[in-house]
Amino acid sequence: MGVTRRDFLMRVGQAGGFGAAFLTMQHLGLMPVAAAEASRVELAAGAGTKVVILGGGIAGLVAAYEMGKAGYSCTVLEARQRPGGRNFTVRNGTKIEFADGASQTAIWEADSYFNAGPARLPSIHKTMLGYCKELGVPLEVEVNTSRSALLQNDDAFGGKAVEQRQAINDTRGHVSELLAKCIQKNALDDVLSKEDHDRMLEFLSYYGDLQKDFSYTGSERSGVEKLAGAGLDTEVLRQPLPMHALLDAKFWNGMMYEEMFDMQATMFQPVGGMDRIPYAFAEKLGDTVQYTAVVKEIRKTPKGVRVVYSKSGPDQVIEADYCICALPLTILRNIPNDFSPQVKQAISEVYYDSAYKVAWESRRFWEQDYNLYGGLGFVVKGPVNLMWYPSGKLFSEKGVLVAGYGVENQSDFGKLPSMQAKFEASRAAVEKLHPGHGKELTNPVYMNWGMMRYNLGSWVGAAPSYVKNRRSDYYDGPYKALIEADDRIYFSGDHCSHIIGWQEGAALASHRVTRMISDRVQSARLSASTTTQQA
Amino acid sequence: MGVTRRDFLMRVGQAGGFGAAFLTMQHLGLMPVAAAEASRVELAAGAGTKVVILGGGIAGLVAAYEMGKAGYSCTVLEARQRPGGRNFTVRNGTKIEFADGASQTAIWEADSYFNAGPARLPSIHKTMLGYCKELGVPLEVEVNTSRSALLQNDDAFGGKAVEQRQAINDTRGHVSELLAKCIQKNALDDVLSKEDHDRMLEFLSYYGDLQKDFSYTGSERSGVEKLAGAGLDTEVLRQPLPMHALLDAKFWNGMMYEEMFDMQATMFQPVGGMDRIPYAFAEKLGDTVQYTAVVKEIRKTPKGVRVVYSKSGPDQVIEADYCICALPLTILRNIPNDFSPQVKQAISEVYYDSAYKVAWESRRFWEQDYNLYGGLGFVVKGPVNLMWYPSGKLFSEKGVLVAGYGVENQSDFGKLPSMQAKFEASRAAVEKLHPGHGKELTNPVYMNWGMMRYNLGSWVGAAPSYVKNRRSDYYDGPYKALIEADDRIYFSGDHCSHIIGWQEGAALASHRVTRMISDRVQSARLSASTTTQQA
Repeated sequence: MGVTRRDFLMRVGQAGGFGAAFLTMQHLGLMPVAAAEASRVELAAGAGTKVVILGGGIAGLVAAYEMGKAGYSCTVLEARQRPGGRNFTVRNGTKIEFADGASQTAIWEADSYFNAGPARLPSIHKTMLGYCKELGVPLEVEVNTSRSALLQNDDAFGGKAVEQRQAINDTRGHVSELLAKCIQKNALDDVLSKEDHDRMLEFLSYYGDLQKDFSYTGSERSGVEKLAGAGLDTEVLRQPLPMHALLDAKFWNGMMYEEMFDMQATMFQPVGGMDRIPYAFAEKLGDTVQYTAVVKEIRKTPKGVRVVYSKSGPDQVIEADYCICALPLTILRNIPNDFSPQVKQAISEVYYDSAYKVAWESRRFWEQDYNLYGGLGFVVKGPVNLMWYPSGKLFSEKGVLVAGYGVENQSDFGKLPSMQAKFEASRAAVEKLHPGHGKELTNPVYMNWGMMRYNLGSWVGAAPSYVKNRRSDYYDGPYKALIEADDRIYFSGDHCSHIIGWQEGAALASHRVTRMISDRVQSARLSASTTTQQA
Repeated sequence: MGVTRRDFLMRVGQAGGFGAAFLTMQHLGLMPVAAAEASRVELAAGAGTKVVILGGGIAGLVAAYEMGKAGYSCTVLEARQRPGGRNFTVRNGTKIEFADGASQTAIWEADSYFNAGPARLPSIHKTMLGYCKELGVPLEVEVNTSRSALLQNDDAFGGKAVEQRQAINDTRGHVSELLAKCIQKNALDDVLSKEDHDRMLEFLSYYGDLQKDFSYTGSERSGVEKLAGAGLDTEVLRQPLPMHALLDAKFWNGMMYEEMFDMQATMFQPVGGMDRIPYAFAEKLGDTVQYTAVVKEIRKTPKGVRVVYSKSGPDQVIEADYCICALPLTILRNIPNDFSPQVKQAISEVYYDSAYKVAWESRRFWEQDYNLYGGLGFVVKGPVNLMWYPSGKLFSEKGVLVAGYGVENQSDFGKLPSMQAKFEASRAAVEKLHPGHGKELTNPVYMNWGMMRYNLGSWVGAAPSYVKNRRSDYYDGPYKALIEADDRIYFSGDHCSHIIGWQEGAALASHRVTRMISDRVQSARLSASTTTQQA
């Protein structure tokens, strides 16, 4: 057509405004994407273009919301009676229905809740934080780390739990002492200059809170045996935990959890439950979201897509120009479709993890008796390894404790024979961290995303060519098939991002596909107009 | 009188109930004080006993509140028109008046505020947390640590600020690598068993996020150059900061701040300002607190105390059985009194620090442009070294940034010639951490507790025999004089505790003296009744 790249960009600019040109330039690699900025979508006007969106989880809701703003005519088909997908908050009276027919109903105090799916928003998830602001969802701090939280290993310290402040700071003290010893012995003279030799000793002294002779004999950082008070009540320090015992204790995972990039402070949660987010989207979207609409067929047509669905009655059909398919791959597998062989292959290959959580209502003994507000506790041995204390409604009488969060597949927890056995394992883990308090736990709820109808899995697991290693080129396999357009069908969800298992990944994947559709609509218009001008 | 200790305890039990006996037994060292429990006062009934309390800061308010509950007839004399003392929240329209006549008025948005005195409540300060609960003061998390907060040194990294996640995790990586090198060289074979040798390497690999060869080449924990996204947007890691440069940077103080026992997560603040606490006490106390009542004389009488005070009119006199003197020692110094020579000596010897804070209203550029919510930032060089980002009203448009918090005495900041110079130093520090944003700061407020009328200091400094070393026996000097009764005068305040500069210390000191007075009242009654019985 004899249109230079510059011409093309100018025309995009004329037709779609600066935003479209800017995005196109980014896609061509002509401009850097500012690392500090949240993803924003500025889509070409979409009036007259119909999009059917499958799945009303975060990916589907974000796609509908952004395309709706640009004038596209969207319909979201959601199988459940609620929006959010895995973003699911359980409250008093909420029913959890497993695919095998088992069902549970939470019986809790009026304002108790439990985020059965995502339960935290890291500061780096700017897209989701941006939506909370845009939609008016109030956030509060999610305390993901507390130095008062506990670590426990049956094989160490007689099974007695220790505070994280103690394990973390005693470990640092010992490591500093050992390294200082080596430096004093000149064991690092090949790598440290004389100047660094001395500064390193000075640094380690501060880092590990060492004595003048570089020995570690304990630190106030590790907490105290007796708190300072008034009058003659002086503080009494703890004896340090020996390094040998700390190595035995294998508290490493628990100690370093807070340093995972997406677990680092500051983190947030919506006040009152994570589902405040999907409900805020749903309120904006109104009738765009069709609930109890179960997808039964996904077909290609010469100029678009046709989706068959049932809504507690005879099958209905919706036709559209484009489809954004934001259903879990585990569900897509069983829906008759016209996908390309590569996509079919990808969907059949991808393996899902099955994450679980167990939640109990209880008196907040962890606050009242342990001085522990929010944070995560860790149990090294046994089937239940993680304890998650509520950050909401701190200081109130009762709260919901998540006693167990992990993956069922190939895990000891997953091998337990019954829901009752799982509850007992959960209670036993609480008892390890808080002896005598296991009996305070009441009205448990068990979530297993692998058993949830319409999910059958929590997130993509270690399938070949998928999440093998977050840093390598793994997208030549199924992932690649799923991030490319299959005719007029686009896949979205956290599984189409590098942020698996997080709402941010779902939102960014939908930003991406809405841009792809918008660019395509725009290009088609431009090429139509170019053809007209040339004619 | 021939009463055995056991008899005495039994009689205390009869007269004061189990609580009194329990407390007495604790004082005699017969029972341990449970470390995990908050301090509680259960005072003997005090009807008919008059107590005058000097100073309506936390110590005075707590004393009046607890003694009031037990029926004592209390009067609090407070020089200002507000309760709280150093617990002082500045809002739009609040006037800050220095002793030299200089005055400032905050001109801020309606709900902006700045805690000019205490601004955080650690989890370990159970007494203050308990009062917040008892008085219905809502608390929220104070974010004292954020991995997105910054560290800056003019002499390192070209003066470019680095994120705390980067300094903290790269430092740990390098330390782990160096120690692993030493262990591999068998430099620690004298202290590590063969088994520990191997486990230590395994541990360091996890601790420092090392490569298989135990080298540290960077970690996702240190943050990324480019965030992971959807489609082909993979994460790009940062190059690690070299250990040599980290040693040069001297970020140690900033990096380890979060590990100080009383700075450790989880921390809190009252929603809307720290002064919600004294106002809640004041509401309970009603007329018990006399405002604008400036103490002019403190005298002993044969059976009690007499205090002269002025209340914008002719001097007034109040007589009482006991006095709790909770005024700063800097103020007591200049009030004519009948204190014992030891107390006079103590008061004259004790030296006060002069803490300052500078606060500005600004667009929350730290949140909007730096993804930074709460936490503390550190600047190594220059007069202003600490930046404190607000934890309240996160995600709102404007906020109050504390750009500078430290001690004026003998500091570079204190040597600055004028308030204007201090504001400029504060702005310059912000500019170092956030280049280009210094100009967004508006309407500054400068607090200097050493200059505040009725305070003339922030807290006891490094006076001889006082806070020389928190762990040694320093209470043989002035401290000892101040924690003993001077006839019927009892001193209270954080300076009568081992928790200097914290509200918790003030509250515990008042718990202590109210117990001492109660025990004395009780003993007097018992001894009167014993005498009667024997008669």
